Amino acid sequence: MRSQNRGSLDLRNVHIENQYLKHPEGSVLITVGNTKVICAASIEDRVPPFLRGTGKGWITAEYAMLPRATETRNIRESSKGKVSGRTMEIQRLIGRSLRAVVDLEAIGEKTIWVDCDVIQADGGTRTASITGAFVAVAMALHKISLEKKWTTFPLQDFLAATSVGISQSGEVILDLDYQEDSQAKVDMNVVMIGNGEFVELQGTGEEATFSTSQLQEMLDAATQGIKQLIEIQRTALGEVATLIDQVVKKQS
Amino acid sequence: MRSQNRGSLDLRNVHIENQYLKHPEGSVLITVGNTKVICAASIEDRVPPFLRGTGKGWITAEYAMLPRATETRNIRESSKGKVSGRTMEIQRLIGRSLRAVVDLEAIGEKTIWVDCDVIQADGGTRTASITGAFVAVAMALHKISLEKKWTTFPLQDFLAATSVGISQSGEVILDLDYQEDSQAKVDMNVVMIGNGEFVELQGTGEEATFSTSQLQEMLDAATQGIKQLIEIQRTALGEVATLIDQVVKKQS
Amino acid sequence: MRSQNRGSLDLRNVHIENQYLKHPEGSVLITVGNTKVICAASIEDRVPPFLRGTGKGWITAEYAMLPRATETRNIRESSKGKVSGRTMEIQRLIGRSLRAVVDLEAIGEKTIWVDCDVIQADGGTRTASITGAFVAVAMALHKISLEKKWTTFPLQDFLAATSVGISQSGEVILDLDYQEDSQAKVDMNVVMIGNGEFVELQGTGEEATFSTSQLQEMLDAATQGIKQLIEIQRTALGEVATLIDQVVKKQS
Amino acid sequence: MRSQNRGSLDLRNVHIENQYLKHPEGSVLITVGNTKVICAASIEDRVPPFLRGTGKGWITAEYAMLPRATETRNIRESSKGKVSGRTMEIQRLIGRSLRAVVDLEAIGEKTIWVDCDVIQADGGTRTASITGAFVAVAMALHKISLEKKWTTFPLQDFLAATSVGISQSGEVILDLDYQEDSQAKVDMNVVMIGNGEFVELQGTGEEATFSTSQLQEMLDAATQGIKQLIEIQRTALGEVATLIDQVVKKQS
Amino acid sequence: MRSQNRGSLDLRNVHIENQYLKHPEGSVLITVGNTKVICAASIEDRVPPFLRGTGKGWITAEYAMLPRATETRNIRESSKGKVSGRTMEIQRLIGRSLRAVVDLEAIGEKTIWVDCDVIQADGGTRTASITGAFVAVAMALHKISLEKKWTTFPLQDFLAATSVGISQSGEVILDLDYQEDSQAKVDMNVVMIGNGEFVELQGTGEEATFSTSQLQEMLDAATQGIKQLIEIQRTALGEVATLIDQVVKKQS
Amino acid sequence: MRSQNRGSLDLRNVHIENQYLKHPEGSVLITVGNTKVICAASIEDRVPPFLRGTGKGWITAEYAMLPRATETRNIRESSKGKVSGRTMEIQRLIGRSLRAVVDLEAIGEKTIWVDCDVIQADGGTRTASITGAFVAVAMALHKISLEKKWTTFPLQDFLAATSVGISQSGEVILDLDYQEDSQAKVDMNVVMIGNGEFVELQGTGEEATFSTSQLQEMLDAATQGIKQLIEIQRTALGEVATLIDQVVKKQS
Repeated sequence: MRSQNRGSLDLRNVHIENQYLKHPEGSVLITVGNTKVICAASIEDRVPPFLRGTGKGWITAEYAMLPRATETRNIRESSKGKVSGRTMEIQRLIGRSLRAVVDLEAIGEKTIWVDCDVIQADGGTRTASITGAFVAVAMALHKISLEKKWTTFPLQDFLAATSVGISQSGEVILDLDYQEDSQAKVDMNVVMIGNGEFVELQGTGEEATFSTSQLQEMLDAATQGIKQLIEIQRTALGEVATLIDQVVKKQS
Repeated sequence: MRSQNRGSLDLRNVHIENQYLKHPEGSVLITVGNTKVICAASIEDRVPPFLRGTGKGWITAEYAMLPRATETRNIRESSKGKVSGRTMEIQRLIGRSLRAVVDLEAIGEKTIWVDCDVIQADGGTRTASITGAFVAVAMALHKISLEKKWTTFPLQDFLAATSVGISQSGEVILDLDYQEDSQAKVDMNVVMIGNGEFVELQGTGEEATFSTSQLQEMLDAATQGIKQLIEIQRTALGEVATLIDQVVKKQS
Repeated sequence: MRSQNRGSLDLRNVHIENQYLKHPEGSVLITVGNTKVICAASIEDRVPPFLRGTGKGWITAEYAMLPRATETRNIRESSKGKVSGRTMEIQRLIGRSLRAVVDLEAIGEKTIWVDCDVIQADGGTRTASITGAFVAVAMALHKISLEKKWTTFPLQDFLAATSVGISQSGEVILDLDYQEDSQAKVDMNVVMIGNGEFVELQGTGEEATFSTSQLQEMLDAATQGIKQLIEIQRTALGEVATLIDQVVKKQS
Repeated sequence: MRSQNRGSLDLRNVHIENQYLKHPEGSVLITVGNTKVICAASIEDRVPPFLRGTGKGWITAEYAMLPRATETRNIRESSKGKVSGRTMEIQRLIGRSLRAVVDLEAIGEKTIWVDCDVIQADGGTRTASITGAFVAVAMALHKISLEKKWTTFPLQDFLAATSVGISQSGEVILDLDYQEDSQAKVDMNVVMIGNGEFVELQGTGEEATFSTSQLQEMLDAATQGIKQLIEIQRTALGEVATLIDQVVKKQS
Repeated sequence: MRSQNRGSLDLRNVHIENQYLKHPEGSVLITVGNTKVICAASIEDRVPPFLRGTGKGWITAEYAMLPRATETRNIRESSKGKVSGRTMEIQRLIGRSLRAVVDLEAIGEKTIWVDCDVIQADGGTRTASITGAFVAVAMALHKISLEKKWTTFPLQDFLAATSVGISQSGEVILDLDYQEDSQAKVDMNVVMIGNGEFVELQGTGEEATFSTSQLQEMLDAATQGIKQLIEIQRTALGEVATLIDQVVKKQS
Repeated sequence: MRSQNRGSLDLRNVHIENQYLKHPEGSVLITVGNTKVICAASIEDRVPPFLRGTGKGWITAEYAMLPRATETRNIRESSKGKVSGRTMEIQRLIGRSLRAVVDLEAIGEKTIWVDCDVIQADGGTRTASITGAFVAVAMALHKISLEKKWTTFPLQDFLAATSVGISQSGEVILDLDYQEDSQAKVDMNVVMIGNGEFVELQGTGEEATFSTSQLQEMLDAATQGIKQLIEIQRTALGEVATLIDQVVKKQS
């Protein structure tokens, strides 16, 4: 039996508390089961060197865990003096995912900094970060859009992420908690937009492999999970969700 | 007029949410006005090299801010690859302060790791960290004391901290918020135990000086502020506060 | 038209020079079009701390580029004092992939170090590294197996990798060179074993998305490309290939 | 009995050798008992970014020990690749202290670099550094003042520092040597200007506390010690001391 | 007997494969016995700060070994996060040597980056690097000279390097391989130009010394070895060698 | 004319103040013209890993400059977080030189740490460091030899170093000061033992070359300079010099 009595294709309880912090342009506390992540979006009025003069903006993400977000205490990366490979992989994933839906030309030469800080970890921190960060970024874009009087909201669609895997017993399971993740034969992170297309797909068999039909089954599970996550984002965003819906409608 | 309509010798609103996180042995979210700090205490079953074989324990503290805890975004210390002088100064202060009240011989060869992570900053983050960390450490010690069946609780007294300063107009003010702090002529951090004795006193005139009588006035303000903070700790600690009171009584 | 007059689903010319260096237990120079990578496998008689005493071995990979492997010179990571996120991502991928086919229990407490050094880069360096590293590791395992007189060769199957993507014009293309890769809408790396199952799947739309049917088309292209790569590995390995075939037969 | 037969409120022998080095604008070798520090002041014609365009100058201090300044050899901070928390704390203290008496507006956009290098350590190295650095800075300011033909000398008062503490036996002692410092229950560093006002007060009970009356007794001891140190600075400065006296007179 | 049946004053087999890589302006693979080094020369259109505005160019060299260039695997300097003293010493030597023959005024404000990457090591890697790098630099200069239509080729003479030493038995030996080098009493690296004058001489007795007459004998051996190396460079350079000969003739 | 009216083959004024510091086993302040270096020798009762269990000792040297030892202030290597190539080169040279005369077998598994800290720099800091460090090491060895009751003193000969060069006008000059060094065409450092044999020879033509006869002339100049330096060492060492003379006599 899975934690919280859920079935193999059920998400954990998800909650997004919008406008969680005072200073950032957008910020949320996202809770996915026992996983809790603070996602903050900050707008900076300049871009990295490779974009200067192009009129195009950028999104960059950073990810970290509090030392005691986990069962046993982790050494801070600032104390170690370097960022781990795992952290780099995750922050690159978050940044790439968000860049798929933000209209970087529209925002002009600005950088959106996304900070995902895991307060409590129980599996799925990278996908929770993406799901939460989307809301923070949308709020931050809304804040500038009020000043800029843009005619089109610069977000092309909703974006959310979840994990899916194959358990030791060979069953496809959705939204793995830490214990499930550490025992799974295959682990896959799926990032998807509102129209059901993929942004990222990262499937890994650690000392194991998976077939085409297993892949299909996992993708189906992820797709329905992400649909539910987007509904939760919609609620958290309130009116701002409507702005995104308008953009989606206009495109189709 | 000060923020929240308070008088020159008033504390801001203070709240301590105990048992804030799932994993650490002790953890709180302390709120002092708009300043919010997560303090977690972790117990590790070994000590730094200089204490091995002495039978004595240790407390070490780490302090950090989320990048967007502040008005403008700060670069992460993990990205910079080194911890700033300010951070080091603060974490050494937190560690030293707590060591004044924990009975390090009694806990044996264990290290208590104290992590203070500032979620939102508005002045007084180091003193809020000390006040909050005390509660987290007390909870963690209580947790081990249950296993160890100690006859005496290894905390010798309450411990809390606040800041006090002299404003541009020459007035002594208690518990400075960020704006007050950045304009003050003199800034002093005071760490005190339940019996009113000092653990740490750090007074600084940045491009200014202060007299003996001003010092006395600041210490009086700090003393009454700390008494109030200890009452708030007492409430947050519940029954664990009684254990500390018993130790204090036994000593006198 | 693609470089070397190839069709959209053709691999570039691939060559594996086995036993390229004098010192390593296994080493190859793999050439994929203009991409050239030296892959070396070294055996060390100990394992990382988390495996000590378990009787199980480990594989760890490192990846680097010569500064002038690329069109314009890159700063050395040793000069920068840190390894980039991209490098970390790649070396973690190479290590994980190889661990899927090496029988880590069978080799005992040994670490296989895999060094992939890109001499010349023209796209697909990470997948060329995996395809070449597999041969180097097989040779190194063969070298120890002669001393150890193992009854079963500790490689469970062949393993190779390639990239596949969707071009600006929406066409699925196999084995992207640098120019194709930098213009592609979607880029996917596929790592597969001899029996056609996946080890890793990493699909990314940088500022773009892809549908389920596009995914299927890309996977089909990758599958047939990897079959060809395994035939080239087989030739390079000579007699050692037979040992792998025997293991595969025994399993089925 | 204390070293050198001194009473509890006596300073050790103090000597300041002015113009110790050839290159710096100001430099001294200060000797306090067995503690010896070279203090050099260098003038640089630019300021840190946060002051550019403000017309205001800056003072920044660095502190280090030779590896064998101490009883047992210390590893160099350059070899360790990072500066310790203790060093950072000390250099921040030295810089802040000097900024309290130098008229940063008057000097214009210049940085005064203060380097305090401990040649031999026997307690009180940070306070000796401040006392010596004041003389080096005064000499350097004198050197520029000759070129600039300033009408007012940009030093507002004398500045010196000493330590004071409470011994194991509960006695207040002035100017602790290394052995006294390592056994003291309370240790306090006091930085004061010529008119008797405080610039910095850092009192610390390591695993101990102190009362208001003990604080007062320590401050009295420090005050009379600092008066003596200022007389020694006056002698070392010769005519330059007169320039400071004139400024002090004009203010009152 | 020495490896490859050579006499005490014989070089090992030396081969220089010119235009080894596709991207760099000049590149070679130099083989000296079992030592193999890839040398690449890159031209960058700017100079370090200390040369800006002087109209003068610069040459800077970097040196590294693949981890498994050696008998046992070396940890990458990028993983260690710092470059070793040995590496720094070697890259400074290569840079200084090349600067002796390149006309830095003539090339204008350009930097020539020289990358020497040891693929396989068996002694003499630093001297092989210099000998190979000279050819790569000559090719790169030739490439720009075609664009620039310089009347004089900006290389003043040939440049090559070898090692010489005194064996345990007291014999002078030329071009030491790894085993000879690790047992030699004295080890000397000699860098020389075509006219027989020295550019660098670095003689070291590790736990041993050498006399003036031994020095003379070693220098004679090195001189004749370097003459042979220059002939091999000449062959590799083809027509470009003629350009250097013309410059040498014009000078005399 | 050279500084201090000296002829082209004259040393500057040299003075060695023995037993300069209180804590180290051996320490001197060596003055060579305006160059001043503190050399300290510390004995540690263990050796680096590669010597453990061999019964043999080790000498390792570190070199640094105070930031304002030079005309303009240098950034501390501890602030930069890494040691420069120049520093590494120098400290390797000092260590190697001293290892040529210390009987590492005789001292057993001890490390002699040599710290050379340049207080004031005016050219020749590395050779002054070697000449001074020899005296500090001799004193430190004498100190242990008293405890150990060794029958033979573990120093095989005197050791000193100087620089020699070729000026712009083509003249051979001895013991170059900073200005001479920065203008010289050729610069050579020579380390020699008491019997006139070489330990190290490092000759460099920065953008210049030198002939065999110029080399000979430079070596002659260095030889007579070093003889004088050894006499100055002898005076500084007092009775300890006699112990070295006895060892030299016994060997011949």
